[in-house]
Amino acid sequence: MKKLILHEVGMRDGLQVEKTLVPIEKKIEWTKKLSESAVDIIQLGSFVNPSKVPQMADTDELFKYFKSNPLPNPNTILSGLVLNEKGLERAMNVGVDLICMGISASETHSMKNTGMTVAEASDRIINMAKSALQEGKPVQVSVQSAFGCGFEGKIDESKVISIVSRFADAGLKQISLADTAGHAFPEQVSRLYKRILDMIPDAQLACHFHNTYGLGMANIFSAMLSGVKYFEAAFGGLGGCPFTKKAAGNVSTEDVVAYWHRNSLRNDINLDILIDLASEVSQHFEKELPGYIYKTGNIKY
Amino acid sequence: MKKLILHEVGMRDGLQVEKTLVPIEKKIEWTKKLSESAVDIIQLGSFVNPSKVPQMADTDELFKYFKSNPLPNPNTILSGLVLNEKGLERAMNVGVDLICMGISASETHSMKNTGMTVAEASDRIINMAKSALQEGKPVQVSVQSAFGCGFEGKIDESKVISIVSRFADAGLKQISLADTAGHAFPEQVSRLYKRILDMIPDAQLACHFHNTYGLGMANIFSAMLSGVKYFEAAFGGLGGCPFTKKAAGNVSTEDVVAYWHRNSLRNDINLDILIDLASEVSQHFEKELPGYIYKTGNIKY
Repeated sequence: MKKLILHEVGMRDGLQVEKTLVPIEKKIEWTKKLSESAVDIIQLGSFVNPSKVPQMADTDELFKYFKSNPLPNPNTILSGLVLNEKGLERAMNVGVDLICMGISASETHSMKNTGMTVAEASDRIINMAKSALQEGKPVQVSVQSAFGCGFEGKIDESKVISIVSRFADAGLKQISLADTAGHAFPEQVSRLYKRILDMIPDAQLACHFHNTYGLGMANIFSAMLSGVKYFEAAFGGLGGCPFTKKAAGNVSTEDVVAYWHRNSLRNDINLDILIDLASEVSQHFEKELPGYIYKTGNIKY
Repeated sequence: MKKLILHEVGMRDGLQVEKTLVPIEKKIEWTKKLSESAVDIIQLGSFVNPSKVPQMADTDELFKYFKSNPLPNPNTILSGLVLNEKGLERAMNVGVDLICMGISASETHSMKNTGMTVAEASDRIINMAKSALQEGKPVQVSVQSAFGCGFEGKIDESKVISIVSRFADAGLKQISLADTAGHAFPEQVSRLYKRILDMIPDAQLACHFHNTYGLGMANIFSAMLSGVKYFEAAFGGLGGCPFTKKAAGNVSTEDVVAYWHRNSLRNDINLDILIDLASEVSQHFEKELPGYIYKTGNIKY
């Protein structure tokens, strides 16, 4: 099996729903710990309107900080989420390593999240992604609500596939499917990724699961069997999209890494640092997080 | 895919760790609900020394009750766990439909749980199982701590396989692997079941996972892919063995059934009844249970 890549999204998808603002000093400290643990990619924030998501107001500043203060692990890749042209410009200005952008497969979710129809969002995002690629910047494009929608319920697979085929036409091959509402189940996961690989055999596949209904880790395993390479997860399982209904936490980074220690796929990632971080985040927000391993500790052999 | 069978073990593995005794009237009510939901097999209790596990003291009485007061669903199978010859005699006397017995693959767990070495327990349990079979009684034999042990850590797969091969020699083909400590991970699950099927192609395979480290549902999915037919789970995810270290709850019945609704494998099982039951059990014990679906509700399409 090829090397699996952990894309840590706690700093963005984890923090964005938290009302209590995290001071930038704390964000820097947590990011350093993530880098030290040797997770591969850290999503540092999103370039959104600060008045809409105040928690992400310091995203530019954070990226700038790490330009002049290198992370403990020089191989750490820093990603950032952009939603529109203004955000893309900001991301290019601060030198984000990997730019992430997405289109929802649900008309209702798309409208609530971006004010655009799926078709409008597709035109706009694909143009943005192409222009970033042309400037030599790696881009990951995602389909949000790819497995179901908290507002609409079932999402036709053909809607997902038609967005992905537009990605393919535009030469965008680093493709993530995001289970925004947590509706995914393992057989659906393997079916969708198979259809994408049939269409784009050299796609670089990513997945982003929420654990709302308890199937997050089963979906991770199914994605692994389906040839997915990039796995998005958040420390402690913190998070959820603020603009969707009843999304519970992300799949927990420590739980994924503990699993990849058990099956010997990524023993190089330091689980103890990740467990410490999740415990610290739990204390910071004064609440128990959904992750398992930071509470039980790892299995010691 | 052949029909998957749900073996509900909440009345035994769920309740046995709870200190507050559940009155028999309540147990009867909960069992009726389980039967009404159309789960296939209900494990009603264990035939153990009442002074060691007071919660199970009324097991004989419960079975007798349902002999004279039929369950709502006439197809419900009632199983019972036996640990020794005395328990087997009691189970035969009250007409248990399916007798379950197990041997731990961990010397330490076996000694703590039964006071016997693995070899001694194997001799004794296999003799008991053979005698029950000879009397025409269906028997399920299990290997406990099959994927790891809270005391010993790693359990050699060869230890599990050697117990299973003794089952095969004795003509015992309904075989469960129990992840008593919650150490199982999906690749290990598929590897072990494959070895068993290679040895006994007509084995009727069962699984029993605990969700201590968050991999319960991923292991369920892996077991499904591996040809396992019987799935043990407990309402609300209640439970855990009182004689092992740090075992968290069982995989939750409602979570498994919600998943089997999503993939259309068992839409005949009534999820609403199971969700109501888990909520009631949660209220009864005045604590939140580990299951997801009874808290989130099912996904409505």
